[in-house]
Amino acid sequence: MFASEKVRKFTEKIFKSLGCSTKDAKLAADVLINADLNGVDSHGVARLAGYVRLYDHGRLNPTPNIKIIHETPSTATIDGDRGLGLVVAPYAMQVAKKKAKKVGSGWVSVQNSNHFGIAGYHAALAVSDDMIGWAMTHSAPLVVPTFSKEKLLGTNPIAVAIPADKEPFFLADFATTAVAYGKMEILQRQGKKAPIGWVQDENGDPTDNANAVKEGGGLLPLGGDREHGSHKGYGLGAVVDILSGVLSGANFGPWVPPFATAGFHDVTAQEVGKGTGHFLGAMRIDGFRPKEDFKQNMDIWINRFRSAKHIDDNPVQIPGDQERNFKAEREISGLPLNEKVVESLLELGERFKVKF
Amino acid sequence: MFASEKVRKFTEKIFKSLGCSTKDAKLAADVLINADLNGVDSHGVARLAGYVRLYDHGRLNPTPNIKIIHETPSTATIDGDRGLGLVVAPYAMQVAKKKAKKVGSGWVSVQNSNHFGIAGYHAALAVSDDMIGWAMTHSAPLVVPTFSKEKLLGTNPIAVAIPADKEPFFLADFATTAVAYGKMEILQRQGKKAPIGWVQDENGDPTDNANAVKEGGGLLPLGGDREHGSHKGYGLGAVVDILSGVLSGANFGPWVPPFATAGFHDVTAQEVGKGTGHFLGAMRIDGFRPKEDFKQNMDIWINRFRSAKHIDDNPVQIPGDQERNFKAEREISGLPLNEKVVESLLELGERFKVKF
Repeated sequence: MFASEKVRKFTEKIFKSLGCSTKDAKLAADVLINADLNGVDSHGVARLAGYVRLYDHGRLNPTPNIKIIHETPSTATIDGDRGLGLVVAPYAMQVAKKKAKKVGSGWVSVQNSNHFGIAGYHAALAVSDDMIGWAMTHSAPLVVPTFSKEKLLGTNPIAVAIPADKEPFFLADFATTAVAYGKMEILQRQGKKAPIGWVQDENGDPTDNANAVKEGGGLLPLGGDREHGSHKGYGLGAVVDILSGVLSGANFGPWVPPFATAGFHDVTAQEVGKGTGHFLGAMRIDGFRPKEDFKQNMDIWINRFRSAKHIDDNPVQIPGDQERNFKAEREISGLPLNEKVVESLLELGERFKVKF
Repeated sequence: MFASEKVRKFTEKIFKSLGCSTKDAKLAADVLINADLNGVDSHGVARLAGYVRLYDHGRLNPTPNIKIIHETPSTATIDGDRGLGLVVAPYAMQVAKKKAKKVGSGWVSVQNSNHFGIAGYHAALAVSDDMIGWAMTHSAPLVVPTFSKEKLLGTNPIAVAIPADKEPFFLADFATTAVAYGKMEILQRQGKKAPIGWVQDENGDPTDNANAVKEGGGLLPLGGDREHGSHKGYGLGAVVDILSGVLSGANFGPWVPPFATAGFHDVTAQEVGKGTGHFLGAMRIDGFRPKEDFKQNMDIWINRFRSAKHIDDNPVQIPGDQERNFKAEREISGLPLNEKVVESLLELGERFKVKF
């Protein structure tokens, strides 16, 4: 176990070593450490080496001039200037919130960015201002649309954060696939098979091969197969891609540049836009009804769902519960970084002369 | 086969018989006929008798005074005055579009409405104005959250309509469950079993019993079980419920009033808000980037996905293709109304002295 505050300081120093400002390094580290605290190990400091790799390949600008390139009172497009998505997305959310304060809601499409970490972090930035927060991003193509043999979409997550009153806020944050790619990597490390319904092989057949995505297969959309609604997961992932990519002027579909998956993803030279895109939004609760009424009703909603008759010993969870439970535990116990992650951090420490 | 224009005229007359204005009757009929034309038979004139039943129970106001009860430049809440959702939702979309024209986007939460038919109809109303349209609604509780034995959510559909250039527009429109309840009704009529992954029984176990929902079981969220991501379908359905119900001041969760499912759904007297709710939105494309650029990129997106290498003889479809294919066929061939639907229409015709 590793104390999260020590890992945080280390992560900040690595980002500063790349040339990031102290403020940006702190923010970027906060996004990553929060992923680890929330139990989303695949999106935490395990990815730090990936961001450094982006820098090494000239794809990351540590001192970006993030700016609004188009706007109306409630919408904007932002050019991330090849900055860390970890920094560009919170900037975009601030713009969305500012617009929401003025005209009720704010919606920001982002181009020319990079991987932004966990979507939930950014969506949750709206909650303390009594707003509903939205965050989505596309990512490198690992996912096959229904009936496709080709990978054309990323795992394209959506997060929606909704304030409550006495209850902790609601936070849905999920990939639009049956599972995120991180789950496949865990199976690979353990030498285990995948459940049917997570991936298909290169011929488009169901498979339990945890290496299928590397071997010409693809991750399946949420729903798994057509009979169980994979066209819905595909449709949802497509909406995320279009709002993040086509609407912002970033790349889209199979042209979204790779991040963590570099190495087996076929990097195409063709570009149809600028970098990676995101889509963020904020809606003021009191743009619709008095916020006290809303928040009290949210408490009723949450308590009704939480107290539902449940199967065996599995209580019905409210979206966000799992992350909160992890966080409460890990803030005390520390982060259970796996061997390979520790190794990658030690290497970074050596390279940048930062003690881990 | 029944000529759609004849069924349309008949449907208009029935709505007028309830006291609806000519304009409202035409609009309501248009929503229903479009469901039938698009192949969504469960949401077309098969539901006409259901709307009449709502009227008979005093839950439907044929001459509603639909009005904005709260607003900011980009948001509004509308009271549907117990009108037909088929009429209230298009009104709400007009408000959303008007706001989008002024400030870039418009978002409308609706309370005190009724079933609004197919979500896609309302979302698509934005497309001809070069806007992205959103429509969602909650509905009566038929769905079990992950690990719940109780039905707390409706099939809560989401639709997103996105304009393209030379290609027809993109339209994702789907229930946030593995299947819509209409699919179970078809199996019931045919005396067939359901695939595992669509429903659970009263104990929360997987079942192939097509009558399970009537017998204490429930529809499963998109994803099916926890291992295949049912918590994602649950989270998405929950977001739809909160935006439609809690945000508008309508009922929510298990308190959403029943519609077509009246009869086996346990109607509770308790009310936590006003009627049924919806959530609609419109975003101006040129609030983000020049619309010509966006629409040309959408064509590239669509053509790339449509031409993907595919499995067997199943081409990769663009969301909206299936509906369009049905429509092209049925505008010529007519509507294949089933026996029970025809029977219900004949009964309505007799009661209201309208020839079918």
